[in-house]
Amino acid sequence: MIDPDVRPLRIVIPLYQGVTQLDFTGPHQFFSRLPDTEVIVASVGAEPVSADGLVFAGLHDLGQVERCDVLCVPGGGGCTNAMASDEYMDSIRRLAQGAAFVTSVCTGSLILGAAGLLKGRRAASHWAWRDQLPAFGAIADEGRVVQDGNIITGGGVTAGIDFALTVISELFDARTAQMIQLGLEYAPQPPFDAGRPERAPAEILEEVTRRMAASMADRRSQLNMVVQRLVL
Amino acid sequence: MIDPDVRPLRIVIPLYQGVTQLDFTGPHQFFSRLPDTEVIVASVGAEPVSADGLVFAGLHDLGQVERCDVLCVPGGGGCTNAMASDEYMDSIRRLAQGAAFVTSVCTGSLILGAAGLLKGRRAASHWAWRDQLPAFGAIADEGRVVQDGNIITGGGVTAGIDFALTVISELFDARTAQMIQLGLEYAPQPPFDAGRPERAPAEILEEVTRRMAASMADRRSQLNMVVQRLVL
Repeated sequence: MIDPDVRPLRIVIPLYQGVTQLDFTGPHQFFSRLPDTEVIVASVGAEPVSADGLVFAGLHDLGQVERCDVLCVPGGGGCTNAMASDEYMDSIRRLAQGAAFVTSVCTGSLILGAAGLLKGRRAASHWAWRDQLPAFGAIADEGRVVQDGNIITGGGVTAGIDFALTVISELFDARTAQMIQLGLEYAPQPPFDAGRPERAPAEILEEVTRRMAASMADRRSQLNMVVQRLVL
Repeated sequence: MIDPDVRPLRIVIPLYQGVTQLDFTGPHQFFSRLPDTEVIVASVGAEPVSADGLVFAGLHDLGQVERCDVLCVPGGGGCTNAMASDEYMDSIRRLAQGAAFVTSVCTGSLILGAAGLLKGRRAASHWAWRDQLPAFGAIADEGRVVQDGNIITGGGVTAGIDFALTVISELFDARTAQMIQLGLEYAPQPPFDAGRPERAPAEILEEVTRRMAASMADRRSQLNMVVQRLVL
């Protein structure tokens, strides 16, 4: 639990073009129900952000956000663009320094890694991208929500909801998390059991992997360039 | 399955001020991965919509959306405001008429009810509001996702994700739903078991109910006014 005298708590969610919206809208819905907490959604230059056909406006200017208690970095196809932006990455490093918890959902952990924040730390990521974590000195973990000290990371996209409840129980307590869980009726009943590569029917996994292949090759080579720049 | 010759499929999500964002951002993320499908997010006059601290811009003008295959109405604290808007409700009735599926998440079913679309139909809603469905001639159902003919309704907020997979399997097939489920890593692991009133610790349920009481009294009296106007 964070010192109860530190109120309002400030959670900062830094967006970028091509973020996966559910990576942050899931946690945001849960965080928005917290008492004495401000949730700041920001982008470089306060530019509106497009994500999967939705447009998020009214954002804060990331460079102007002075500090936060919790930094929460979402993932998405645009994560390599975020890594390529010095202004974005400088803000991530600066805000992480003063934060009680540094967190991410999905491939947001690759952004934390590229910012040099995961060296020697266990972290989660989207199942198809988890193998990239060691390139940043992180230890890939298959957990849906992984905590290593003050680093809390969630797996792919929908893991952000389980992640949010875990973060809330760390910031406040289990009681607060359970009250919000009840209010948002989070008692999942997936009609299919295909949400993890180990459980999906083989044919589904093959087809999804095949369809991802083209875009993954591009993004892996972009990631390699980021890693090489870090090493130089 | 909808006739495969009807492509692109058009899913319309009509927003209003005070919608609960996860009610539609959850399903939207899943729908956005569908092949040959356009997901149109609209509001009266294309006005930006504020929801729990997020601002959704770049919306379509609801009154100008000619038709849809799937109408998907989200819920939220603002649902009684939506019911009070003739322009919003006229669009709901008009779009529902031509739709293959009329659907909702959370208290979106109360909006469908107020539009006269649920008479004699089984429907889900948020657990705290389910008892209001009979006022609109609907049959309240405790299911997380409820299908009655071409009406598919989800329970509170996070039920929208289970709902989306069900809708996708109706529109396409189980295979398409499972591929999207794997891509979005939907294999939920809630850290607590408090997401339904029957399962939450008694003390949590009491406290949540107590905190909801004030706002619920207001909204129930607003609902009563809508119902009375429908009867007259």
